[in-house]
Amino acid sequence: MADALRDLLDGRWATLRRTSLELLGKLEPAGELPRDQYRAWVLDQLRALADGGHPLIGFPAEHGGQDDVGGSVVAFEVLGYGDLSLMVKAGVQWGLFGGAVQALGTKRHHDEHLPAIMSLDLPGCFAMTETGHGSDVQHLRTTATHDPETDEFVVHTPDPSARKDYIGNAARDGRMAVVFAQLVSGGAEHGVHALLVPIRDAEGNPLPGVGIEDCGPKAGLNGVDNGRLTFDRVRVPRANLLDRYGTVHPDGTYESPVEGEGRRFFTMLGTLVRGRISVAGGAGSATKKALTIAVRYAERRRQFTRPDTGEEVVVLDYLAHQRRLLPALATSYALHFAQEELVSALHDVSDDRAQRELESRAAGLKAVATWHATATIQACREACGGAGYLSENLLAGLKADTDVFTTFEGDNTVLLQLVAKGLLTSYRDHVGDLDPWGMARFVADQAVGVVIERTAARAIIDRLVSGSSDALLDRGWQVRQFEDRERHVLEGLARRLRRATADNAFEVFNAAQDHVLHAARAHVDRVVLEAFVAAVDRCADPSTRDLVDRVCDLYALSVIEADRAWFLEHGRLTPARAKAVTQAVNDLCRLLRPDARRLVDAFGVPESWSRAPIIA
Amino acid sequence: MADALRDLLDGRWATLRRTSLELLGKLEPAGELPRDQYRAWVLDQLRALADGGHPLIGFPAEHGGQDDVGGSVVAFEVLGYGDLSLMVKAGVQWGLFGGAVQALGTKRHHDEHLPAIMSLDLPGCFAMTETGHGSDVQHLRTTATHDPETDEFVVHTPDPSARKDYIGNAARDGRMAVVFAQLVSGGAEHGVHALLVPIRDAEGNPLPGVGIEDCGPKAGLNGVDNGRLTFDRVRVPRANLLDRYGTVHPDGTYESPVEGEGRRFFTMLGTLVRGRISVAGGAGSATKKALTIAVRYAERRRQFTRPDTGEEVVVLDYLAHQRRLLPALATSYALHFAQEELVSALHDVSDDRAQRELESRAAGLKAVATWHATATIQACREACGGAGYLSENLLAGLKADTDVFTTFEGDNTVLLQLVAKGLLTSYRDHVGDLDPWGMARFVADQAVGVVIERTAARAIIDRLVSGSSDALLDRGWQVRQFEDRERHVLEGLARRLRRATADNAFEVFNAAQDHVLHAARAHVDRVVLEAFVAAVDRCADPSTRDLVDRVCDLYALSVIEADRAWFLEHGRLTPARAKAVTQAVNDLCRLLRPDARRLVDAFGVPESWSRAPIIA
Repeated sequence: MADALRDLLDGRWATLRRTSLELLGKLEPAGELPRDQYRAWVLDQLRALADGGHPLIGFPAEHGGQDDVGGSVVAFEVLGYGDLSLMVKAGVQWGLFGGAVQALGTKRHHDEHLPAIMSLDLPGCFAMTETGHGSDVQHLRTTATHDPETDEFVVHTPDPSARKDYIGNAARDGRMAVVFAQLVSGGAEHGVHALLVPIRDAEGNPLPGVGIEDCGPKAGLNGVDNGRLTFDRVRVPRANLLDRYGTVHPDGTYESPVEGEGRRFFTMLGTLVRGRISVAGGAGSATKKALTIAVRYAERRRQFTRPDTGEEVVVLDYLAHQRRLLPALATSYALHFAQEELVSALHDVSDDRAQRELESRAAGLKAVATWHATATIQACREACGGAGYLSENLLAGLKADTDVFTTFEGDNTVLLQLVAKGLLTSYRDHVGDLDPWGMARFVADQAVGVVIERTAARAIIDRLVSGSSDALLDRGWQVRQFEDRERHVLEGLARRLRRATADNAFEVFNAAQDHVLHAARAHVDRVVLEAFVAAVDRCADPSTRDLVDRVCDLYALSVIEADRAWFLEHGRLTPARAKAVTQAVNDLCRLLRPDARRLVDAFGVPESWSRAPIIA
Repeated sequence: MADALRDLLDGRWATLRRTSLELLGKLEPAGELPRDQYRAWVLDQLRALADGGHPLIGFPAEHGGQDDVGGSVVAFEVLGYGDLSLMVKAGVQWGLFGGAVQALGTKRHHDEHLPAIMSLDLPGCFAMTETGHGSDVQHLRTTATHDPETDEFVVHTPDPSARKDYIGNAARDGRMAVVFAQLVSGGAEHGVHALLVPIRDAEGNPLPGVGIEDCGPKAGLNGVDNGRLTFDRVRVPRANLLDRYGTVHPDGTYESPVEGEGRRFFTMLGTLVRGRISVAGGAGSATKKALTIAVRYAERRRQFTRPDTGEEVVVLDYLAHQRRLLPALATSYALHFAQEELVSALHDVSDDRAQRELESRAAGLKAVATWHATATIQACREACGGAGYLSENLLAGLKADTDVFTTFEGDNTVLLQLVAKGLLTSYRDHVGDLDPWGMARFVADQAVGVVIERTAARAIIDRLVSGSSDALLDRGWQVRQFEDRERHVLEGLARRLRRATADNAFEVFNAAQDHVLHAARAHVDRVVLEAFVAAVDRCADPSTRDLVDRVCDLYALSVIEADRAWFLEHGRLTPARAKAVTQAVNDLCRLLRPDARRLVDAFGVPESWSRAPIIA
C-alpha cells in the first residue's frame, strides 16, 4: 500500500522523479558554512547537477536536450528536497536565464548560447526586477537605445531606482545577463524587451560600464549570490536583442509579430510561466520535508502523563497537535495533485487560450502553494518546540529559505489579482495585461457571465455532483460548495466592478480589493479540489484509494471550515451545519492520525537530506 | 499631538522608559558577525548594560537595587528595540538566573550572589528544560539526592532525555546554573526544587562531572550561547539548595511551608512569572519595530500607475496593503496597553488570588502577543517584498529572532490551556497545577458558574455597556460582544468537561481541546480590549483621544471579524451585520491610513536601531 500511495504521488513523471532523486542522492548537505564558502559550495553542486544531466531535461533536443518541459519542472521540484539555495541557483541558471534565451531568443541565440548555458560554461542572470519596479515590471526604467551609427544597443540605468535588484547569480558568478529594458529605436519607444548583456570577463571582473553590487546577507538562500546591476551606457551588438517577439533592423526600424506594446510584453512574460510553476513545486517539496520531520517527531515525542494508563501521551495523539499538522498535510496532498495537473497543462499547452489559462492557474497556484509553505513550515517549527528552532533539525533553514517564495516570481497579492482578472475577462488577455483599474473598466464594459469551467476530471465531477447528497462527506456536496462559492463571489465582484467609470475606476477597484482576493482564492481552491478528486479516481489500489479519499475529505472540509463565515453569511450553511463541519474536521484528524506516518513517508524525502537529530 | 500619543504609550513608567532608551542609544548594532564574534559582542554589550545600571532596576534595594519590579520589565521591553540576542541574554542573566536566586533563594543566597549577578561577575544559567521534558517540567528527571554522610546534594542526569537543553548562557559564558531537579532526601521524594550548581571554573573550563555541549546554530538569537548540560553525580553543599519553599536538614529531614508536591512546585514557578511577562513585552517591541519599518516603507513605495492622475500609487493607499498592516498596528496598540496593565498588576500584586490571576493573564498575554509578533513580522516582511528579505532592512532578523518566543517560556498552546483552566477553576490553583485531565475532573466535580470579571477600568466599562446601542462603532456594543463570546464559550466548555469521569477524562478533554483554546483566546481578547478602553479613557488630549478611539474600533472590529463565524454560528450576528463588520474594518483602514505614520512614530523606536536602507 505504501508503494501504491507513492506511485499515485509520483504520477506521470514517475521515472524522471526517481532518476532525479538518484542524482540528488549523490549530493550531500553542506552543513554550516560562512556565506562565501556556502556560495562556492552551491556552485560546485550546480556543476555536479550539470554533469549529471539535470539541465538537459527541459532544453531542445537539437541542442542535446530532452525536450521535456514538464519533466524539467518535476526535476526542479525534486531539488526542493535538497539544498534550497542550490534549487534556486539551478532555477536562475537554467530556468530563468536559459529559459529566457530559449523562449525570447531566436535560432542564432540558441545555437550560440544554449550548450554553454546547459554545461554551466556560461553562468548567467535574469535581470528584470528593478529597485523601483518589482511587481509593475512593465514600467521598469532601464533603457536599450539603438544607435544606428554603430548598429548597437546602448543599455543604460537612468537613475538609482532603475538599478536591477535581487538578481540571482549577479554578485559572484554570472558572466552574462538577460536584461529587460525599454527598447528605443528610430526615435520611438517599443516597450520592454530583453537583451543579452555580458557583465563579467573571463576572469570574473565586471566589464566596463557595468556596476555590480552584492545584496549582502538575506533571511535565507544565502548560497545564492543575489546582486544589483547598473549600466552606464553599455554597448552591445544589435544581435544581442532576444528578438523572437520584436526585432530592430539596422536602420532602427522596429518590427514585431505581436501588436500592441502591452500585449507584446505579456506575451513575452507568458513564455516564462514555467518559473512560477517551478516555485510552486519547490515550495511544495520544502513543505513536504517540513511535514515529514514534524510528523515523525510528533509520533515519538511524549509529554504529560495520562492518569488512567500512567503513560506519557504521544503528542500526535492530542487533538490540538493533529489540528496543526493534519489539515496542512491534507492540503499538501491536494496541492501536489494540483501541481501535477498544472505541469501537465504546461507540457501539453496547445493554443493561445490554453496558454492564458495556464498563466492564470500558475499565478494562482504559486500564491496559494507558497503561502501554504510559509504557514505550514511555521506550524511544523512550532510543533517541534525548542528543538524546531535549532538549525540541526532543518526546519529553521526551510523556513528562512522559503520565506521569499511568497513575494518573488510575482508578489502573491498581485498574482491573485491577476487570477481574478483572468476569470472576469474569460482569459481575454495574458496574465498581467490590463492594469487593475483597466480590468475594472473592462468589466464595466462587458456583460460578464461568470462560468465555472471544470478543469480536471470533468466527467467524474459531473457524476459526483449530479448524484450528490447533502452529507458533509459526500464529495459531490463538497465540490458543489466550492463551485457555488466561486461563482457567487465572482458574480458579486463583477457587479461591483461594473460601477466603475473612467473617473472612479481606482476607487471602485481599490474598495473591492479584498473581494478580488477572495474570488481568486475561491477559484484556486476549486481547481485544487478538482485535481484531488481526479487523483482519487485514478487510484486503483482499494485501500490506498480509501485513504486518499479521507485525506481529500479533510482537505475539502478544512477549506470550508476556514471560510465558513462566508458560507454562513450567504446562507450556504446553517449554524448547526457549520459547527458540524468543525466537528467533521476534528473527526477526520482522529481518523487519519494512525496514517500520518505513511502519508509523509510516501512523499519520499530522501533520508540523506532529512537527517534531523530529533527524528534520528 | 504626537507627544500626547507618545505620553499615553509611555504610561506609568515613562521616566524609566526614557532613561532605558538613553542607555540603549549608547549601544550600536553589531552588523553581520560570525557566531563566535557575535556571542562575544553580546557579552560586551551585556557588560555595558550592567555598567549602565540596567540590572539594578528589578533587584532588592538592600543589595543596591531599585526594588522596581515593573520597571525591570519595562526596561527589558525597551531592549526589544535593540539587539534581540542581547535582550534575551539580559533576560537569562538577570531575569531568569538572578530572578530565580532572588525568588527561590533565601537571605544567604541573596547576600552571597545577587551583587555578583547584577555586576555580571557571576554569569549564570536557568537550567530547567530537559530534552525529554519541556512543557511538562513537573516531570523532569534530573535528581538531587541528599547524602547525609557528607551533607551534600548529588546532582545527576540519569539518562539522555534528562539532559538540560536549550539553556541560555550555558555554551560559553555561564559559571553557575540554577538547576531544577527532583529532590530526594531521607529516602523520600519531594518533587522539583532548584539548586545552585557551579558549572565552570574561573578559567571557563567545565567543572568535573559537568558535561557541556553547544546547541549550535539556531534560526535566530545566535548571539545567545544556548547549550546542553549533563551532571554525572556532581556534589554541591546542602546550602546550595534554593530553599525558600522547601529545605533539607542535615539529617535529611525535609520541611516546606507549602503543602503538596504539585502546589509547591507551581508556587515556585509562579514566582518566576516575570519571565513570561517580559517575553510578551519583548515580542511587542520587536513587532512595533517591524511595523515602523513596514509602514514607513509603505508610505514611500509606489507601484502601478493611476490612469486618472498618471501618478504611481503609494502602496499604503491600496486597501490590501492597509489590511495587512493597519489591523496589526491596532492590535499592537491594544497589546501595548494590556501589557502595561499586566506589568502594573505584577508590580502591585498583593495576595494569593491576585498572584494566580496574574499568572493566568501572563500566560494568556504571552501566547497572544508572541503569535501576534510572528504573524505581524511575517506580514511586514511580505509587505516589503524582496527588500524585506534582505538582512540590511532588519525584518529578516526580527522574524528569525522572535520566532522562538511562541514556544519558549511556555509553549503557547499549553499556556492557553492553563488560561482556560484558571477561568474554569476560578483561579483555585496556580497556573500549571492540575494536569489537563485533572482539570476535566475538577470541573466535573464542581457546579461551575462562569463569571466574567472586568479587569481594567471597571467603572468606565460598566457605563459604556449600560448605555450602549447596537451600532458597530459603539464601544459598549463591542465590549458586550467580547464578554458575551467569552461567557458563552466558557459555559459550553464547562458543560462538555463535566461529562468527564475517571475513565474517560483524557478522551473528553482531548476532544474539547480546540474549544479550550478558543475559550482562552476569547478571554485574553476581552482583557486586552478592556485595557485599551481604559487607555482611551485616560487620554486627556482631545485629538489624540479621537485617534486612539478609532484605533480601538479597528482592534475590536478586526477581532470580531476574524471570529465572525462564531458570532454567526451562535446567532450573535446576522449575515448582514457580519458583512457590515468587514465593511467597517475596511472603512477604518481607510480612515486611519493618514495617521499610520504618526501611530508608528509614537512607538519611539530609536533611529540608531532602525536604520534600514529602505526607509533611509
